Amino acid sequence: MFFHRKELISAVQVDEPDAAFGQKLLEQFGGATGELTAALTYWVQSFHVENPGIRDMLQDIALEEFSHLEMVGKMIEMHTTGVDQTAAYKSSLFSIRGMGPHFVDSNGMCWNAGYINEGGNVVRDLRADIAAEAGARQTYEALMKMAPDQGTKKTLHTLLTREIAHTRMFMSALNSLGKLDDPMFGNVPPDETVKLYFNLSKEDGKDQRGPWNEDRGLDYLEDPAPQGAAPKDPVNPDDEASSASSSRQKRAR
Amino acid sequence: MFFHRKELISAVQVDEPDAAFGQKLLEQFGGATGELTAALTYWVQSFHVENPGIRDMLQDIALEEFSHLEMVGKMIEMHTTGVDQTAAYKSSLFSIRGMGPHFVDSNGMCWNAGYINEGGNVVRDLRADIAAEAGARQTYEALMKMAPDQGTKKTLHTLLTREIAHTRMFMSALNSLGKLDDPMFGNVPPDETVKLYFNLSKEDGKDQRGPWNEDRGLDYLEDPAPQGAAPKDPVNPDDEASSASSSRQKRAR
Amino acid sequence: MFFHRKELISAVQVDEPDAAFGQKLLEQFGGATGELTAALTYWVQSFHVENPGIRDMLQDIALEEFSHLEMVGKMIEMHTTGVDQTAAYKSSLFSIRGMGPHFVDSNGMCWNAGYINEGGNVVRDLRADIAAEAGARQTYEALMKMAPDQGTKKTLHTLLTREIAHTRMFMSALNSLGKLDDPMFGNVPPDETVKLYFNLSKEDGKDQRGPWNEDRGLDYLEDPAPQGAAPKDPVNPDDEASSASSSRQKRAR
Amino acid sequence: MFFHRKELISAVQVDEPDAAFGQKLLEQFGGATGELTAALTYWVQSFHVENPGIRDMLQDIALEEFSHLEMVGKMIEMHTTGVDQTAAYKSSLFSIRGMGPHFVDSNGMCWNAGYINEGGNVVRDLRADIAAEAGARQTYEALMKMAPDQGTKKTLHTLLTREIAHTRMFMSALNSLGKLDDPMFGNVPPDETVKLYFNLSKEDGKDQRGPWNEDRGLDYLEDPAPQGAAPKDPVNPDDEASSASSSRQKRAR
Amino acid sequence: MFFHRKELISAVQVDEPDAAFGQKLLEQFGGATGELTAALTYWVQSFHVENPGIRDMLQDIALEEFSHLEMVGKMIEMHTTGVDQTAAYKSSLFSIRGMGPHFVDSNGMCWNAGYINEGGNVVRDLRADIAAEAGARQTYEALMKMAPDQGTKKTLHTLLTREIAHTRMFMSALNSLGKLDDPMFGNVPPDETVKLYFNLSKEDGKDQRGPWNEDRGLDYLEDPAPQGAAPKDPVNPDDEASSASSSRQKRAR
Amino acid sequence: MFFHRKELISAVQVDEPDAAFGQKLLEQFGGATGELTAALTYWVQSFHVENPGIRDMLQDIALEEFSHLEMVGKMIEMHTTGVDQTAAYKSSLFSIRGMGPHFVDSNGMCWNAGYINEGGNVVRDLRADIAAEAGARQTYEALMKMAPDQGTKKTLHTLLTREIAHTRMFMSALNSLGKLDDPMFGNVPPDETVKLYFNLSKEDGKDQRGPWNEDRGLDYLEDPAPQGAAPKDPVNPDDEASSASSSRQKRAR
Repeated sequence: MFFHRKELISAVQVDEPDAAFGQKLLEQFGGATGELTAALTYWVQSFHVENPGIRDMLQDIALEEFSHLEMVGKMIEMHTTGVDQTAAYKSSLFSIRGMGPHFVDSNGMCWNAGYINEGGNVVRDLRADIAAEAGARQTYEALMKMAPDQGTKKTLHTLLTREIAHTRMFMSALNSLGKLDDPMFGNVPPDETVKLYFNLSKEDGKDQRGPWNEDRGLDYLEDPAPQGAAPKDPVNPDDEASSASSSRQKRAR
Repeated sequence: MFFHRKELISAVQVDEPDAAFGQKLLEQFGGATGELTAALTYWVQSFHVENPGIRDMLQDIALEEFSHLEMVGKMIEMHTTGVDQTAAYKSSLFSIRGMGPHFVDSNGMCWNAGYINEGGNVVRDLRADIAAEAGARQTYEALMKMAPDQGTKKTLHTLLTREIAHTRMFMSALNSLGKLDDPMFGNVPPDETVKLYFNLSKEDGKDQRGPWNEDRGLDYLEDPAPQGAAPKDPVNPDDEASSASSSRQKRAR
Repeated sequence: MFFHRKELISAVQVDEPDAAFGQKLLEQFGGATGELTAALTYWVQSFHVENPGIRDMLQDIALEEFSHLEMVGKMIEMHTTGVDQTAAYKSSLFSIRGMGPHFVDSNGMCWNAGYINEGGNVVRDLRADIAAEAGARQTYEALMKMAPDQGTKKTLHTLLTREIAHTRMFMSALNSLGKLDDPMFGNVPPDETVKLYFNLSKEDGKDQRGPWNEDRGLDYLEDPAPQGAAPKDPVNPDDEASSASSSRQKRAR
Repeated sequence: MFFHRKELISAVQVDEPDAAFGQKLLEQFGGATGELTAALTYWVQSFHVENPGIRDMLQDIALEEFSHLEMVGKMIEMHTTGVDQTAAYKSSLFSIRGMGPHFVDSNGMCWNAGYINEGGNVVRDLRADIAAEAGARQTYEALMKMAPDQGTKKTLHTLLTREIAHTRMFMSALNSLGKLDDPMFGNVPPDETVKLYFNLSKEDGKDQRGPWNEDRGLDYLEDPAPQGAAPKDPVNPDDEASSASSSRQKRAR
Repeated sequence: MFFHRKELISAVQVDEPDAAFGQKLLEQFGGATGELTAALTYWVQSFHVENPGIRDMLQDIALEEFSHLEMVGKMIEMHTTGVDQTAAYKSSLFSIRGMGPHFVDSNGMCWNAGYINEGGNVVRDLRADIAAEAGARQTYEALMKMAPDQGTKKTLHTLLTREIAHTRMFMSALNSLGKLDDPMFGNVPPDETVKLYFNLSKEDGKDQRGPWNEDRGLDYLEDPAPQGAAPKDPVNPDDEASSASSSRQKRAR
Repeated sequence: MFFHRKELISAVQVDEPDAAFGQKLLEQFGGATGELTAALTYWVQSFHVENPGIRDMLQDIALEEFSHLEMVGKMIEMHTTGVDQTAAYKSSLFSIRGMGPHFVDSNGMCWNAGYINEGGNVVRDLRADIAAEAGARQTYEALMKMAPDQGTKKTLHTLLTREIAHTRMFMSALNSLGKLDDPMFGNVPPDETVKLYFNLSKEDGKDQRGPWNEDRGLDYLEDPAPQGAAPKDPVNPDDEASSASSSRQKRAR
């Protein structure tokens, strides 16, 4: 059950209302990386996560994100109040939709649930959450660079900070499951192809090596060739090359 | 520049064509967790990632995902060929759209780029990629459970395995940047609120504790209260409670 | 600021888990007429509504809708728990996405903010809210007809009832502004065309009359003719028919 | 069956072509509150509304809205003709899409049928229609404020006026069914919870009262508590609190 | 200006109501290839097409498509009337949305204007129209195969036929502009690369030849190589290969 | 199987980075008429096209379009590099999303697969492809007009040229099937209504004639009347006009 108090979870300050910046702020209200995405993602995950501790954490953070959504909404309200005669307001989407926040991004595209990544497994969910926080943090940094006044910048700083705090929590939870640095999860162990690296994008003499293709037991295919058959020729299907074919691979380590 | 050979990167086998399962497979062709999402995500990231090694890795993996998209498409083609008189085909979306793959998910919803998480920072991108792989792996496991024949199951097993392999690569790359287990990235250091945990979803005597809210120096707010002001009363704006107010927080560790 | 308790606002009972019905229930979780639409609509309106009483009411009801969203989610969770071996589950979207609620409608289409009608004026908002409640009520009735067990039906009955209760509240609020039965609102008085009714869809001898085209001072145009000009002929623009033209209208009362 | 004459239903005048304003006008051509939404909503409703009078009215008004869509399209055409060398045109979406109207809103987002609210019951439909008209009227007022010339403003005035006229018709129709001020409709009478008001958004000493929570026989819950159980603890399910629990509610009138 | 008569443009007959087929029919009401797409595409094109004859044709056909949309809607109405107790109805989307047509496709996805291809040039528009008709015809053929009764089949046959008739008209119009078989149009003559064919998808000894790569003066690149430079190496930008480089192409005819 | 080389298929030159123009360029990266639409359309068609020559051509051209997508992406990267302090960048969507390409159009709307027209028949596919090329060419011409520098303009010229080249190929392929100028295709011969032209959009004395309504054996209905019945009057269904009715058509040639 949800409850609400009119006071904000954290102070919001806007020294210089600016409708153009208000439109940019919509990215964190109704945009892909915004607080609505975060709040709904963590909360909907809590319905299928069985681990009671992690489920509780997801709900705690979801609730905080709803309160942050409210802060962003309040900032947008403040950036669009009393400025409806400015050119910035007139050329903004607020001139049509009215002042205050709306569930669209900074380009006016409606929020949609395709932004949410969740389902079926807590490890998948936590990895999605770390990614969601990374997107949110990145957008807050972009907004801070453009913020027209110190109050706005300070408020954004706190919101950005909380994304880092949540990231730490999600990492801790993932680590408690042993999955922060273990690629495997779920019920299906990998087959033997797990060790291959395919060098498919080439530049003569400049293909790059790094831990991602030099790691423990990885098999670097410098010049990978198809292992599957070509589609049958509908005219002469018997002519088809055998699917067992090619072991032409040139391996390097 | 892109090149193509008709042969598949890895063998695809379907022993028992089944249009209903073919429709489920669309999830990995035109669905949120599918190979198109993966291929386009990694590839578009490569345009802004400056680290040459990671950029090359993103392109290598993107190319592999395009080849996996082709494998999934081929499986769908095989599951919908020669079965147009079956009831499963007639009740499937193929009866309207025709046999073979289409860029829709298993419920017929069009693929859209809202599924992609990328931009501005390589750490954000790599975290998004680990999350994308986790979603893809989860869907492959779900499909394997429902696969009607051993050939399909084996093919899906290889595709699932490669998602684990990619996850390992993305984790290695992130680790090479020191960001696999460090929540911070980017140019804005967190402010002092980074240490707070808000216990906002409660159940008497059952609120959970774990490393995510017990970790190093975290400040657990058992009963968090608003720190921001309520909105002004439009009738009596002077009556507004001070924004500096409340330090009523009860802290616990 | 938002708060949450683990207990539900009202009891949820499911006697007979049925994944096919669980999928239908998604309509009220992630569908157009669902609780998310309601919660977000009323809440986002509260940022621009100046009347403090109505703003408070919008927030009170929004919070209740979040709690109803939780109830619907819980019902979906219960209808999809322990049934993953049933045919209904296997053919449902849960087989791919996992058990529990997701922000999609009963056909798997993602929720999007295009469902929300709000902005600029409290009268517009309240009319939108009455419409939103009507859609929600209608869907609940449809779901009750299909509900597989008494517990589910009873829970839906309460949710349906609350939509009626909210409708009453919105009607009261609209009435307090004098706008429940007054078509006019806003700052622009209508021009003289406000009295016209255009009989544009015809059936000989069967055109219908009712209060909507017989009311106070309405001018019923039985056979309306164009009052505007045709587009200029690009070849002979001077040949254009005058825009002042036609008073060929046949009026009837 | 549909018919068309080249002349417009009402005169359209544009004194001062302005592509930036033309882009704003798209909101009423391909936007959520636009004439396409109105025309298609009323018309599609007519397929399931059984009342012959109201069905006829829906078709009459739908046809008028198609004719208004044409007027808006013509205005956009006039605002984008002969101005392709202006800076306003070059920075507008017309520079890419070409002059004239397109089925996108003023931010370039495609029209979609998620804007339509209809189905199953004429009362629901009429309430949706009143809401649709309210949104349309609000947008026309916003556009009138920004209109660059008197001809445009006058044309918009007539279009705004017709939305009021339609609202009156829909209200008359709803009133003829006794449902303009009766919250109930459909086949399911409310249960006993219909009388409750939940004060879920609080501010000490400032919670608002009004007819919406003081009305006939309403039960105002000043401090509502959960009536449903918490989810089972997966570890100790027997420990679950009884669902019949709480009558801790504090009621006030 | 639009007008309507209640009678249909052509007779609609349904002998055997079948809600499952009614759902399939939605593809031509609210689907990508449906009559709404056709009607709105041709009509919106007419606002920017300057050729008065072609503009008139576009409007004539658009109006016919609106009347066909009505026929499809009527068929759906007839397939969903009096069958709400059947299993087919209960498992269809009508069980939630109510009987009759809705602006969604056969999988319940909302119609959206991304289906429309138009703008800027009449040749582009007419080519888009021929493509739209081809999609519509294809879907009608698919529906005819599944139609449960002769009346439905006959009605669909007429609708399919009219798509062929429209195709002929669009081809005639395009031919009258000399653009039915001339790839060029618009104001920009092609550069010298117009003669190249890139054999980018290979299979040893099986690459196909046909008029599309053997035609008048085409230059068939059997083994095309990059002509542009690689991206600069951010570490050693001076090391970049010259962009003027490669003329390694092996040409064949 | 897909392969990649870092060098571009054709040289890309940008003399004057301009973020505002970079945003316009997104139309051909993530917009409806862009290279992603082209690449995915032709490639997905190849899974169901049985003609081996045309299938190969579709794959050859799809691969080229992927390489063109890369060129457009590279141009966007170059237009948004080193300009993040310019006003154009700050007001562009790159200020939020980061530099480089993204899969959105020039208004920030996400790419979606509703842009793709394909399925079931190679004639339908090829017609769709000619239409896709026409849209792409039109957008390139629009972009060339706005291009801020000669390098960009030249690069766009080559991309535009290749669309013409592809159009020629698709026309050749369609012609090889005898379907470039034959409206008919598929398995259903038209019924007798194929010869009718409905003059549904009228202007007294100005209805246009041309080859599209004067052609071989066309029957021009100057004043078409409904041939189907009106819907039954629900009150007096027996009163319904016969569906066989009207032969009131006035025919002219």
